[in-house]
Amino acid sequence: MTIFEKIINREIPSYIIYEDSEHIAILDINPIVRGHTLVIPKQVVEDILDMDGESYAKLMSVSQQIAKTIKAKLGPRRVGYVVMGFGVPHTHVHLVPLDGEADLNFNNAKQATSEDLDKVKNILNNK
Amino acid sequence: MTIFEKIINREIPSYIIYEDSEHIAILDINPIVRGHTLVIPKQVVEDILDMDGESYAKLMSVSQQIAKTIKAKLGPRRVGYVVMGFGVPHTHVHLVPLDGEADLNFNNAKQATSEDLDKVKNILNNK
Repeated sequence: MTIFEKIINREIPSYIIYEDSEHIAILDINPIVRGHTLVIPKQVVEDILDMDGESYAKLMSVSQQIAKTIKAKLGPRRVGYVVMGFGVPHTHVHLVPLDGEADLNFNNAKQATSEDLDKVKNILNNK
Repeated sequence: MTIFEKIINREIPSYIIYEDSEHIAILDINPIVRGHTLVIPKQVVEDILDMDGESYAKLMSVSQQIAKTIKAKLGPRRVGYVVMGFGVPHTHVHLVPLDGEADLNFNNAKQATSEDLDKVKNILNNK
């Protein structure tokens, strides 16, 4: 079982900013930019290219919705999308607030404090 | 008019690997990895978050199809997706063949030769 399933099952805590029956979105605890979010389908599929068309379409639709919320609440110029597929063998979409192309650098990943993750979570959850 | 509209209108040449009435996919002539492809909606929208749900869903569906072709024909471990939104003010999805996370580095962009772009185009167009 990967860390994502444990998060979905509430076996380990996380900073959840969105959830529906088929998806969960959480803050990355090692963000490359403040507000860096992971959108995860609850169905375990390793490679996004192996998702069936309907599940994939829903994942992408939810990702657009959440990206819009990030843009509205945190105010970056853009919200970047990244899918890579290494690390956790459970596909996920990274959403990263960006003010320029240089912000999209995974070498900038740095552990955030729980205080700051709580703050960002509250900003994003605040309707 | 951006470079993408000129490409769509055939005012400047490009390495087209897919086209339908609403999309075009071309090889990036400064690829970060061989096979780096751009999937572009013909409708001009600057920010992907401003696309209407139906157009966005089609763009993402076509991107998955093309990524599957890239994976099948070029054999990388994964095909990465990236959307940033700087540079050309006409939204597009980067598809990048990846064997590891380090391959997704936009600092690796390097002009490809027309010979090699033709070769890659032929590989990807060969059904």
